[in-house]
Amino acid sequence: MYKSGIDIISIGDEILIGQIVNTNSSWMADKLNNKALPINRIIAIADKEDAIKETITESGKTAKLVLVTGGLGPTKDDITKKTVCKIFNSKLIINKDVEEHVRLFFKKRGKDLTKINSDQALVPDNCKVVFNEQGTAPAMYFEKNETHYVFMPGVPFEMKNLMTNWVIPYFTSLCKVPYLAQQTILTSGMGESFLADKILDWENNLGAETSLAYLPSPGRVRLRINVKLDNKANADNLLQKHIDDLYKIIPDLIFGSNNDTLEGVVGKLLLEEGSSISTAESCTGGLISHKITSVSGSSNYFKGSIIAYSNTIKNKQLGIPLSIIKEFGSVSEEVAILMAKNVREIMGTTYSVSTTGIAGPTGGSKEKPVGTVWIGFASEDGVFAKKYQFGDQRERNTSWTVQTALNTIRKFINKNKAK
Amino acid sequence: MYKSGIDIISIGDEILIGQIVNTNSSWMADKLNNKALPINRIIAIADKEDAIKETITESGKTAKLVLVTGGLGPTKDDITKKTVCKIFNSKLIINKDVEEHVRLFFKKRGKDLTKINSDQALVPDNCKVVFNEQGTAPAMYFEKNETHYVFMPGVPFEMKNLMTNWVIPYFTSLCKVPYLAQQTILTSGMGESFLADKILDWENNLGAETSLAYLPSPGRVRLRINVKLDNKANADNLLQKHIDDLYKIIPDLIFGSNNDTLEGVVGKLLLEEGSSISTAESCTGGLISHKITSVSGSSNYFKGSIIAYSNTIKNKQLGIPLSIIKEFGSVSEEVAILMAKNVREIMGTTYSVSTTGIAGPTGGSKEKPVGTVWIGFASEDGVFAKKYQFGDQRERNTSWTVQTALNTIRKFINKNKAK
Repeated sequence: MYKSGIDIISIGDEILIGQIVNTNSSWMADKLNNKALPINRIIAIADKEDAIKETITESGKTAKLVLVTGGLGPTKDDITKKTVCKIFNSKLIINKDVEEHVRLFFKKRGKDLTKINSDQALVPDNCKVVFNEQGTAPAMYFEKNETHYVFMPGVPFEMKNLMTNWVIPYFTSLCKVPYLAQQTILTSGMGESFLADKILDWENNLGAETSLAYLPSPGRVRLRINVKLDNKANADNLLQKHIDDLYKIIPDLIFGSNNDTLEGVVGKLLLEEGSSISTAESCTGGLISHKITSVSGSSNYFKGSIIAYSNTIKNKQLGIPLSIIKEFGSVSEEVAILMAKNVREIMGTTYSVSTTGIAGPTGGSKEKPVGTVWIGFASEDGVFAKKYQFGDQRERNTSWTVQTALNTIRKFINKNKAK
Repeated sequence: MYKSGIDIISIGDEILIGQIVNTNSSWMADKLNNKALPINRIIAIADKEDAIKETITESGKTAKLVLVTGGLGPTKDDITKKTVCKIFNSKLIINKDVEEHVRLFFKKRGKDLTKINSDQALVPDNCKVVFNEQGTAPAMYFEKNETHYVFMPGVPFEMKNLMTNWVIPYFTSLCKVPYLAQQTILTSGMGESFLADKILDWENNLGAETSLAYLPSPGRVRLRINVKLDNKANADNLLQKHIDDLYKIIPDLIFGSNNDTLEGVVGKLLLEEGSSISTAESCTGGLISHKITSVSGSSNYFKGSIIAYSNTIKNKQLGIPLSIIKEFGSVSEEVAILMAKNVREIMGTTYSVSTTGIAGPTGGSKEKPVGTVWIGFASEDGVFAKKYQFGDQRERNTSWTVQTALNTIRKFINKNKAK
């Protein structure tokens, strides 16, 4: 089975008109892919009966598994359930267990059950009902003409819970798939085309069973390597050989693999050393600090930050003389250095990183155009700052700066370790 | 024409395996929707010749316009161009103008042209080449059997530039569409089902030409109202009436419309008053500060923040006595109040907001479970703090806290204005 893979269908006008980004589908695709369950297509359609009927029927002709999210919420714009009844010749009946679950769900939260919410207990009479512990709308499972269909609510954490606890275990046990060895190698410090040039020989020698994809984003390029072979050990070994070879060519650029993040990698390095970090941020406005603290357990190495947007605060809170700011400007090597040096002393941390720059779109000049950023770094060995010239878009510049600052910490610790 | 709308197709294994989120498609959908250009489907498929051929051919049967992104980059995983040649019976030729453009593109950046990059000048001989000023891969436009096809690179800012400067102007001038009046009303402070109950009567009286959608996310619910009528003035008037009626029911919950953000709305309120803001953050780790500074021009009202993750920093930088922290715990009303009060004085701002809580997944206790958050707010009128119980997921808790803190600032200023 699964010879024809999986179609993921999202129902919701809000996706089609671009009001929300379809993160549900990418999460599902990632989890299914990790189990080597192949995905044919990801489709988004409107909350319209015709579109729902047509797309689900069409997918049922070619896909072995059709996963549908959205349109099961309590509000009136959700017509999926009615349409499902038409596709599978069902009628809606009250499911007593779901009704009780919904009642308890609201009771636990100290809230009364409204009519809108109790309607969540209506389900097609010929489906298997899959409980949704995180919310009120249950999932519905049908099998018809050798295709399996699962309808789930579109609320992300409800869908994720259903996928993790039921859909993925159920369908991985049902199907046999060819073995896919996969790893994504994460690099930081070189743009896509220059990286591609640097590893061209390696890429040309990968062979037919291996495929490579470049996934660039501000401050990093991810290299996804896939090896498909019948034999698991052979695939794993070949993948490992490719990765070992790649490490020999670009050892300093690689910071991790798969779902690693620079903030996670930096956190691990700090934990290993028993060292600590603080930040003094101007143009990044707290985003480095937020990234570092987005890692659970970061309180073990992150002490605090001073976000100094105005010159007064740079002076008062970071002790930077106004004369220095006046002479060199707040976006300067001198200020970046003092920011890093002083915040390290104030916070009493092993390391510190600082940013000062012109994120844009305004504030640039001929000498210091938008995208000019100084990143400072301090340790017991001293302090340095480096100038970067990013682009002209505020959000991208902030992302570039954060990734580069985190990479600066990583590189310093690794260099120290190598000594 | 356009009787059958638009299909948006993204090509890229990275989407299908969930490694990147399809933000390109949602951006495109948003911009097309703003011109009332109707979208049938958003589809993502793999970098595979068969899938590309089949999907594009299939879309060409029903859609009037097929917009394709991805697979035009310089690296080897990109096979779209070769496949396009098979679909449209083209052969690849060097386009001298593009070649010169690519050469200049790299020269301007002080870099030499590599072979990989010069191949970007290869284009199908029977397409219209649309220049890509932001990058090296040009867009390609075909017309066949009354369907229009545009192939664009997947790099977001290159695609956006092509869409804005060529695709959207070109196709809006080509087609006639029924008039859609649309507005999304943004609310904060009440969950979806309770909001739905509160506005049920209003919703029931909207009428057949109006549709309503609920778009919930942590800390806010967006209400998208669509009115479709032949006459523009009638549609605009009816939409405005619905909105006016809604404002009467939930005046305090509404913070803006369409693409407004809480940080943008708060920024405007602060600018109008000539007042300023600072933050003292623990569990949000700088995210409030980052959100505020993500607004261009925020340096006019944002002074700075102290991110105090450790108790030592709460004591040293925010002047909170260790005895208070010991007695009440760092997640407490007392600490939230002192954080807000003291950071306001330190930064010399009109207002300040503080957060201290247990983001999770660890650190909870019976008395203070994961998701317990205190948000403090200080002004010249005094200081208060309020307790919230969010969920059990770190990222969602942080988002809830940030939205709620921003909404606290908004509500205070609005209340003050009303006095």
